[in-house]
Amino acid sequence: MIDRTRIGLDALRAKVMTAEEAVSFIGDGDTVGMSGFTGSGYPKAVPLALAGRIEAEHAEGRPFRMRVWTGASTGPELDGALARADGIEFRLPYNSDPLARDKINRGEMDYFDMHLSQVAPMARQGFLGPLDTAVIEVTGIRPDGTLVPSSSLGNNKTWLDHAERVILEVNSWQNPALEGMHDIYYGTALPPARMPVPLVRPDDRIGEPCLRCDPDKIVAIVETDAPDRNLPFSPPDAAARAIAGHLLDFFQNEVAKGRLPASLLPLQSGVGNIANAVLSGLLDGPFENMMAYTEVIQDGMLDLLDAGKLLMASATAFSLSPEAATRLNAEMAAYRDRLILRPQEISNHPEVIRRLGCLAMNGMIEADILGNVNSTHVMGSRIQNGIGGSGDFARSAYVSVFMSPSTAKGGRISAIVPKVSHVDHINQDVQVIVTEQGLADLRGLSPRQRARVIIDRCAHPDFQPRLWDYLARAERSPKGRHSPTLLNEALSWHQRFEDTGTMHVANNDDTEAA
Amino acid sequence: MIDRTRIGLDALRAKVMTAEEAVSFIGDGDTVGMSGFTGSGYPKAVPLALAGRIEAEHAEGRPFRMRVWTGASTGPELDGALARADGIEFRLPYNSDPLARDKINRGEMDYFDMHLSQVAPMARQGFLGPLDTAVIEVTGIRPDGTLVPSSSLGNNKTWLDHAERVILEVNSWQNPALEGMHDIYYGTALPPARMPVPLVRPDDRIGEPCLRCDPDKIVAIVETDAPDRNLPFSPPDAAARAIAGHLLDFFQNEVAKGRLPASLLPLQSGVGNIANAVLSGLLDGPFENMMAYTEVIQDGMLDLLDAGKLLMASATAFSLSPEAATRLNAEMAAYRDRLILRPQEISNHPEVIRRLGCLAMNGMIEADILGNVNSTHVMGSRIQNGIGGSGDFARSAYVSVFMSPSTAKGGRISAIVPKVSHVDHINQDVQVIVTEQGLADLRGLSPRQRARVIIDRCAHPDFQPRLWDYLARAERSPKGRHSPTLLNEALSWHQRFEDTGTMHVANNDDTEAA
Repeated sequence: MIDRTRIGLDALRAKVMTAEEAVSFIGDGDTVGMSGFTGSGYPKAVPLALAGRIEAEHAEGRPFRMRVWTGASTGPELDGALARADGIEFRLPYNSDPLARDKINRGEMDYFDMHLSQVAPMARQGFLGPLDTAVIEVTGIRPDGTLVPSSSLGNNKTWLDHAERVILEVNSWQNPALEGMHDIYYGTALPPARMPVPLVRPDDRIGEPCLRCDPDKIVAIVETDAPDRNLPFSPPDAAARAIAGHLLDFFQNEVAKGRLPASLLPLQSGVGNIANAVLSGLLDGPFENMMAYTEVIQDGMLDLLDAGKLLMASATAFSLSPEAATRLNAEMAAYRDRLILRPQEISNHPEVIRRLGCLAMNGMIEADILGNVNSTHVMGSRIQNGIGGSGDFARSAYVSVFMSPSTAKGGRISAIVPKVSHVDHINQDVQVIVTEQGLADLRGLSPRQRARVIIDRCAHPDFQPRLWDYLARAERSPKGRHSPTLLNEALSWHQRFEDTGTMHVANNDDTEAA
Repeated sequence: MIDRTRIGLDALRAKVMTAEEAVSFIGDGDTVGMSGFTGSGYPKAVPLALAGRIEAEHAEGRPFRMRVWTGASTGPELDGALARADGIEFRLPYNSDPLARDKINRGEMDYFDMHLSQVAPMARQGFLGPLDTAVIEVTGIRPDGTLVPSSSLGNNKTWLDHAERVILEVNSWQNPALEGMHDIYYGTALPPARMPVPLVRPDDRIGEPCLRCDPDKIVAIVETDAPDRNLPFSPPDAAARAIAGHLLDFFQNEVAKGRLPASLLPLQSGVGNIANAVLSGLLDGPFENMMAYTEVIQDGMLDLLDAGKLLMASATAFSLSPEAATRLNAEMAAYRDRLILRPQEISNHPEVIRRLGCLAMNGMIEADILGNVNSTHVMGSRIQNGIGGSGDFARSAYVSVFMSPSTAKGGRISAIVPKVSHVDHINQDVQVIVTEQGLADLRGLSPRQRARVIIDRCAHPDFQPRLWDYLARAERSPKGRHSPTLLNEALSWHQRFEDTGTMHVANNDDTEAA
């Protein structure tokens, strides 16, 4: 139910209008900066109304396409609706919406896939052009005009600062006790005025709880009362549990060798079922007094907080199941002191990640035997989601881990291949690879040593013989034994999948024996 | 001539011995951390004596191989001599010696190619194992036992701190007025004790001028009097001058648009003739009061200092021609206040590079039409040198530039290819590509937009038609139009070079028209 008390600055009440009225401020060719990160805190009414307007304009034969910037992924009411209306010409920096993904892969939408920490500073650099309108979900406007943020912060601070005009959605669904959880750092600047980010512990608060916004820039306020998309998580399957087990064994061994503190180092965890399985595993593990410095807070983090294993978590957004979102919202006051949401330029800042020494745990599509990782592209050309924060975390992490089941598509795709079809993480940034088969610790190994460990520990037995065979033949080259590669065969596994629907070789297929 | 006054701490004079005597402290299987970065400040006598000892041991049928850690590349007296003696089992983090390179590419030496900023912190993490002996060139020992560094700092601080025992080479060739140029920061630590690096301007001094060393760990001191390898630079050729011209035009345009200050931002410049051409171009350019925050100081930087265009330069090492080294050495006192040498974990620290907003200008082997860069591997498998600091700088730079002539090997190799045979820099970290043909500004472009700009601006006309043809055919795939790729053709240009010695297609070769 709309809570009329959420707008605390009287002067702004006159700006309240319907979403349909608000979208009159957005025109064809505009650049629009929206809130939203991993399906939370995105505007829910204005984009839908905008999609309606775009469809109407298109029906009249008039052009209407925008450049859309966000924090990261949003919800079907934003990326889905606008993609369906063919209203997005250009999109940055991350997308997981299936309709938008199809548009991108059909070449109908230009997509600029960025490191999430770099979006705000690069927008300030100017080469992306001006920002016409910001559309930001908040949970309240305080009497002093500052804005109480919603379930994600993303790039909201930057969009509010840089946009010509601002449209706010005030969402009453979120518990007003969310106020105070956020920490918005206003000390960023462009060089040569850039200073150190004064954050030295995950629980440091270095900023302000509310967003600043010039009231004169606010052209419309739309009231809403709607939850985030909050997709359900499946319970971890056997592969995910096995991956979690291998990784927790590795951490225990590192602690035993004195290479990690008993409370580990700040955890960063990607989104998804494997990441959640790792968090579940930590529930039963030996580590106490942990902290998280991550991008997104999932269900598993709340469970660790409840169990007292995790002291606190810092992120830029939530990504919860409907049940966990309801639980968080009901007990917001109790969680508020143990959770911090920050702008993504801080949650993902490589300076801070390296200082804190995060343990980065991210999913992948595939890894190759030399230790390079593909996080984004299916068969080299089709984008899945985007690089997100994985590059921000992996290169600066204390230990950088990538995880995946060893096969996909019912065993027809191997996640361990001779050569990845696209590189997001170079071998220097990939220290540990884990599949349900086992864990490869690649630290300090040469490429040929890495190949042996990866095939031995991580590849599925159905694909191992052909990987060993590829490696042996690649090593026959008299001068190419540093990073053994057979150029004419390196991507043949992917090509075979495109041609036949499987990376497996038919019995009578001897193309690789030549 | 050996200068006997260089050893200021009397107690240490008893440790003076010959290099042949000193190497008795090093044994088979040891890990040895040597000084040396880009051919400067490496020990010159001990490695040669060590090579002699290794050859003698091998002649007697006894094993003798070491794990060798350095700053970066050294000189023929170190990597060359030890590789010839087959004395290196494992090498990190960077090598440019041709003999060592051949060993690596023949699979006879394991090579761990690292981001240079990460060597010292990763050595501290412990997974690389203990460090038995440090062999460090210095230019003097002060009465208080601290060490006056030589022409590079590299990882010397870390090797001295962590080695079980220390062998010093005291080189009298360098002017004693070098003392005071260095700035050695002792504030680094492992997480959770890691603090911000308090450096906010390239000319900030945050440390000490001399290296600390426990005198009890010093087992041998060897006196030398020898210059660094100091390779001559060729004067820039037409291609290098054209690349420099395109890049300076770009910078001027960025200044005109208000996106760069008139004095630019701190320059980082890779090593080599193209980099030197850019520095030469800056001599005649409109930019004043520049500063450099870079890895290596080349001839061109000294020229810019002399001309008053450059206020100061910060780096971790020199890489000078014999003439420039002599000139620097003769006028050391005059240069000392405008040059700062730092440990490589600071000169290359991504935290500092991002804060300062460096303009990163690095060479490459090849780029692909989607904007990925290969800096290290020839035809996918053979390492050239290593990633060096290019990853440290490129990802954190304000603008990241990669440069190369558009062709190599007399026109038989195209530096712009359908797909790079190895990825060091992902497209997110590559903002500008320059060849003598032109400059591609890739900022804010989707992959297909990048492909058009790169082919149009950077590819050599002899290769352009086939690149356009590849792109057109790759874009025919109905669902692969985000990052257009033909898997079975993507690496065919490299394979053709391996097979025929050229990337050009013979007239009757229609393999790609299928």
